Amino acid sequence: MRPADVHSRPEDPASDETAEGGATLAEIARAAGVSAPTVSKVLNGRADVAAATRTRVEELLRRHGYRRRRGASQQSRMIDLVFHELESSWAMEVIRGVENVAREEGLSLVLSESAGRLMPGQTWVDGVLARRPAGVILVLSDLDAAQRAQLTSRDIPFVVVDPAGDPGDDVPSVGATNWQGGLAATRHLLELGHRRIGVIGGPSRMMCSRARIDGYRSALESAGVAADPELVREGDFHHEAGHAAGLELLRLPEPPTAVFTGNDLQALGLYEAARELGVRIPEDLSVVGFDDLPLARWVGPPLTTVRQPLTEMAEAAARLVLDLGRGRRPAASRIDLATSLVVRNSTAPPAA
Amino acid sequence: MRPADVHSRPEDPASDETAEGGATLAEIARAAGVSAPTVSKVLNGRADVAAATRTRVEELLRRHGYRRRRGASQQSRMIDLVFHELESSWAMEVIRGVENVAREEGLSLVLSESAGRLMPGQTWVDGVLARRPAGVILVLSDLDAAQRAQLTSRDIPFVVVDPAGDPGDDVPSVGATNWQGGLAATRHLLELGHRRIGVIGGPSRMMCSRARIDGYRSALESAGVAADPELVREGDFHHEAGHAAGLELLRLPEPPTAVFTGNDLQALGLYEAARELGVRIPEDLSVVGFDDLPLARWVGPPLTTVRQPLTEMAEAAARLVLDLGRGRRPAASRIDLATSLVVRNSTAPPAA
Repeated sequence: MRPADVHSRPEDPASDETAEGGATLAEIARAAGVSAPTVSKVLNGRADVAAATRTRVEELLRRHGYRRRRGASQQSRMIDLVFHELESSWAMEVIRGVENVAREEGLSLVLSESAGRLMPGQTWVDGVLARRPAGVILVLSDLDAAQRAQLTSRDIPFVVVDPAGDPGDDVPSVGATNWQGGLAATRHLLELGHRRIGVIGGPSRMMCSRARIDGYRSALESAGVAADPELVREGDFHHEAGHAAGLELLRLPEPPTAVFTGNDLQALGLYEAARELGVRIPEDLSVVGFDDLPLARWVGPPLTTVRQPLTEMAEAAARLVLDLGRGRRPAASRIDLATSLVVRNSTAPPAA
Repeated sequence: MRPADVHSRPEDPASDETAEGGATLAEIARAAGVSAPTVSKVLNGRADVAAATRTRVEELLRRHGYRRRRGASQQSRMIDLVFHELESSWAMEVIRGVENVAREEGLSLVLSESAGRLMPGQTWVDGVLARRPAGVILVLSDLDAAQRAQLTSRDIPFVVVDPAGDPGDDVPSVGATNWQGGLAATRHLLELGHRRIGVIGGPSRMMCSRARIDGYRSALESAGVAADPELVREGDFHHEAGHAAGLELLRLPEPPTAVFTGNDLQALGLYEAARELGVRIPEDLSVVGFDDLPLARWVGPPLTTVRQPLTEMAEAAARLVLDLGRGRRPAASRIDLATSLVVRNSTAPPAA
């Protein structure tokens, strides 16, 4: 496979860039009172257009539903992957999935981090408009309406992996069966005989975290076990939060005998809290994580966890976004891959 | 910061692309019996040149030491990062370092994996020639002489992080003080009173691994402790190798009381072997890792390890490659950042 030429793009917009049904580029230019090449510059994310002009042109593009049709020759051979934070082997699993597909397709992978914000900044969007990637994959991240409109008008498809918020029905996304995972984790603990089961969730603004906790609640409810609100803690998916919430739970007058920790990193934080307090896993405390990162197998004791197929999710997202770029519409705008419980040594029946 | 325009590059080569001292592009074209635009196409990694012509032109470029001078406007706003394998949080620490600098500089990060080979393939090189990044960073990876010549003739600078082999004096590289790290790890164990100290190295073809083991040997020697060849094992820096070598070492008639594991993942493999055999850490066995990945703090017991400043190394490499692109020559072609021993709970005096 050979990378396509990235610099033979036509600067002249008239020839093969036309609106789908809506206004043509020339009409947008007339309405904005600028030349067609100026509209083309805005479409290409060029810096040499006055800010006010850009704003006016963007507004007209949006209002007229302008959509550039791109042939394959006008796309660069790149795929954009954006994380809200580049951290932990969680991100590595996702990167590997996208890289697998990128290599198969002879595409380069452009990686960005929105620096902890759930929305990438405008600088990033400008870069995407200039790069014209074959597609954009956002991880635990989202675009605002104006950014979406900008990508759409340039015919740059995007897919969200594990959407943090609710991306809306029109945004294709790939996730995992988080609710079922929370249900399976909690059922496993119930079947072992636990009744006092705590949970440390991720941030409540993240849908994946809410779904896992709802699964936990449903499992308790269908087993006829009352959920004790004192046993429900909110974390942020990092080790430190698992440690802090773990100490709180284990220091309760009546501590839980088992905890579903929302993800693997929080499970390790709980491991540390248990070590500090001399609480043995699994003899005194059962722990179930979520994700099944490689380290879940390596920690002591090896962690029982809900496997989330991160690499496969990323591969699915990459294939989906490339399909969209080729004009194929997906059967469903949301794909959820199955989670599965992996039982290792951190769970056991409660002490008698 | 605004990304520069990536598609306004001059296709006409005559204007501002000249050789440094050597032949001009027109002379290369004449010698090859092709037109100047054809040489330009080869320089740009374009697909539409016959293979034989490409080979002839590349050969002439190399022989004449042709070097294109690029202005900033002719570079794309990208930086290329290549791993020999994208795995573990080790790679994530490096990615984060390069991403930090890329963000500061308004550059996009293009990530590739050479799929376990220590040399990226020609497809990758062709992609780089077409992309024209501001610089290339290779991690545990290297280029062959022809690939180096190709990048040099296009004025695309490159830097190697933690070179696997010996990249040669003319290749700028960033590493860590591996020998000192191996020395410090082993001295720590000697000071605790251990005399029977094993080591599990990485692959012997990797210089960083050799240096760590040599540091181990030097520490033993200067303490007057004879190195027992039976206690020296070769791994591959993965968890499984640490597990396998760990089982071998712990099953020796006279097993070591302490092991320096070459990296953190191998330490976790040894943890698992010790668990399986009922060997307690640190009571029966002291363990020292290398890297100080985030998980070193999280495992039980928290791992004593040699910190390798991976993120800082990656930042240094990114700054170095951008400096080279701006025509600044580095003071030294090899920068080694300091390692430091981090003592946690996996090391203790040997049982009496």
